[in-house]
Amino acid sequence: MKATIITIGDELLIGQVINTNQAYIAEQLNNAGIIIGRMITVGDIEYEILSAIESAEENSDVVVITGGLGPTHDDITKKTLCKFFNATLVVNEEALQNVKDIVENRNVRWNEMMFEQSLVPNNALVLQNNCGTAPGLQFERNGKYFFAMPGVPREMKEMIRRFVFPFLQQKNPTQIVIHKTLQTIGIAEAHLAERIGNVIELFNEHPKTTLAFLPSIFVVKLRISVVDTTSEKAKEQIQRVENNIREKIGDSIFGIENERLEDVVKTILLQQRKTIAIAESCTGGRICEKLTNVPGSSECFERGIVAYSNTSKIQLLGVDKQLIETFGAVSKEVAEAMAKGVRETSNTSIGISTTGIAGPTGGSTEKPVGLVWIGYSDSEETFATQYFLGKGRNEVKERASLAALELLRKKLLNISLKK
Amino acid sequence: MKATIITIGDELLIGQVINTNQAYIAEQLNNAGIIIGRMITVGDIEYEILSAIESAEENSDVVVITGGLGPTHDDITKKTLCKFFNATLVVNEEALQNVKDIVENRNVRWNEMMFEQSLVPNNALVLQNNCGTAPGLQFERNGKYFFAMPGVPREMKEMIRRFVFPFLQQKNPTQIVIHKTLQTIGIAEAHLAERIGNVIELFNEHPKTTLAFLPSIFVVKLRISVVDTTSEKAKEQIQRVENNIREKIGDSIFGIENERLEDVVKTILLQQRKTIAIAESCTGGRICEKLTNVPGSSECFERGIVAYSNTSKIQLLGVDKQLIETFGAVSKEVAEAMAKGVRETSNTSIGISTTGIAGPTGGSTEKPVGLVWIGYSDSEETFATQYFLGKGRNEVKERASLAALELLRKKLLNISLKK
Repeated sequence: MKATIITIGDELLIGQVINTNQAYIAEQLNNAGIIIGRMITVGDIEYEILSAIESAEENSDVVVITGGLGPTHDDITKKTLCKFFNATLVVNEEALQNVKDIVENRNVRWNEMMFEQSLVPNNALVLQNNCGTAPGLQFERNGKYFFAMPGVPREMKEMIRRFVFPFLQQKNPTQIVIHKTLQTIGIAEAHLAERIGNVIELFNEHPKTTLAFLPSIFVVKLRISVVDTTSEKAKEQIQRVENNIREKIGDSIFGIENERLEDVVKTILLQQRKTIAIAESCTGGRICEKLTNVPGSSECFERGIVAYSNTSKIQLLGVDKQLIETFGAVSKEVAEAMAKGVRETSNTSIGISTTGIAGPTGGSTEKPVGLVWIGYSDSEETFATQYFLGKGRNEVKERASLAALELLRKKLLNISLKK
Repeated sequence: MKATIITIGDELLIGQVINTNQAYIAEQLNNAGIIIGRMITVGDIEYEILSAIESAEENSDVVVITGGLGPTHDDITKKTLCKFFNATLVVNEEALQNVKDIVENRNVRWNEMMFEQSLVPNNALVLQNNCGTAPGLQFERNGKYFFAMPGVPREMKEMIRRFVFPFLQQKNPTQIVIHKTLQTIGIAEAHLAERIGNVIELFNEHPKTTLAFLPSIFVVKLRISVVDTTSEKAKEQIQRVENNIREKIGDSIFGIENERLEDVVKTILLQQRKTIAIAESCTGGRICEKLTNVPGSSECFERGIVAYSNTSKIQLLGVDKQLIETFGAVSKEVAEAMAKGVRETSNTSIGISTTGIAGPTGGSTEKPVGLVWIGYSDSEETFATQYFLGKGRNEVKERASLAALELLRKKLLNISLKK
């Protein structure tokens, strides 16, 4: 089954509100095995709404509509649906009682607009609203299903959960869609594609398998999607594709679904009963900030030093002044001394450091903006690795922070650091 | 002029990614006086993309497209545009050089897919990409304008700012929309509305003036919008409304437009030739992270200590062990000792500290999740202020970081700390 999602509201068309309803509905329908062909957003204008519903009816089996069911003058979805389905408005007693209960409960004065909330098209099935006053509506025509719900997210979500999802799942039991996301780090999208190769063609006896590359700063997510008749079969196929990808680039996959690198690193540190301290220069506190976003990180994260000035590097991390004068603050030697210094003074298992040029100024031919040294120190070894992380202060900070956490992950898991 | 926005990508249709691009583009076009008629989202499927562009061409003067311009097999927008505009792909030397520069800058190995990024339809105007490899494209046909940009938000935003917005504003000069945003901090939206009162009615001789409240964590932006025939008239009206608002809540307005609190604080510190050091416990590095996001912050920010463990508070900040044992790490006394300690050891003009309970665990009846003490110390005084900042680890960290920077701003500007 194929669906169209229509979201209605002027606030969406001027960009005042981000359309989170669309994504939620898409995800839910997808979980019921329904493919979304198109999502349309229109304003509170009758002919725009009608034209959107007409084209949706033509191209899909299921049409899900939200917005414009409220009581004020700009809400015209209900009237427009009456026109589309040749219906008239009638009082729905259950909806009327619901409105009365809410008004009484909140101690609000009754007005005529509240009565209008209980009016529904005479050929609609009513989806009662548990969280608000506007009822949802369901229509059927020529074997196609239409759902209209309020645009208030929690009211819409409740109706999806109680009515729309169970209804569609029952109508569409033969097709299941399963996704799995693998999170990779440190390999450019184009190189990833090259290394992964023709994984989809390898498994083309199974027709509906897709692989999507979703890049963000330093991280590329790989989303495997499989459509099948049963959840078991789809999961098996996901597993085959995942195994094949892991054989090729497994070392660069740090997590799955929405796991963050800092979540993964914290878990490994706790498993291995190791503690960590961070000495940051160019990343300016971002590594600490990421690690402390993870609940319970205080069990493994002892301290962080944002050693922005040379004085602080010398005073707090025991970096030799001579070293800074000879090699500069952005150097292999200073990165190593910072990592070792923060580990020793904090008495942790591991010390990590960053020193580099975040820009926009401060670069030179020899040491350009984007040059970052990341230092690592444990009881057995201390070293630093050089990175060229491009431009943009925020991007350099983000890439350097992720590169430092990734270096830590690889060391903890004994993965080779070669790229 | 009327526009259609088309966003392309399977990740949108399965609800994996929330469509923030759409809202951003809608807002920008709106600012250029262009009405959005419809927004359409389709997957990476040729006939879906073609049908969306065809219907957009029919119904609007401007078509803005994002997504699907990347180098991997699932990116088909460029090829589809060639089909739609009867074009062939040719190398664009500037785009090629850009890709080469990025590859070199990041020290990445060259591959064939990177070359493909420099290919553009022969009848397109090229919108060079300042932040990434995929160039944007502009077409014109029968007096209608088409823009295609990458789906990566920062790349798209850069192109809107440099090419699309100026181009459309110049094509559509008869109606001027001017916005001004005032950034307020620390006052809840409902209270702000109460204190600002009927500012719009006060100026209702001018019909098209609106005031929008845009709340985010701890900050509420006030956006004044005026539509007029000339930029001068609109700016005068903006000024009248702004003056009125400033009379009522001026002390809580820390900046305008997209200024961040950390930008404002850094500017004041430099003006007053003051330096600062930060000692963070519950905020975990976020204050340092914010301050160091501002270019040139090294001129006033000396160091930060993320003193997560008690040991680090004692060892690095000179907090008396007895103080922690008597009052607990989350206390007025420890916050004061941390602020004073970090100022004295770093020899800066000002020291700021945070200690609190970010949650989700660690709270008690006496010291609930969300309790945060913020300490301040300069050569004349040392004190700490108590805050109750609600729930949610990320939210508590964000509110505490902003509250600390706001306390700093008020002290620097001699504004009363009374709420």
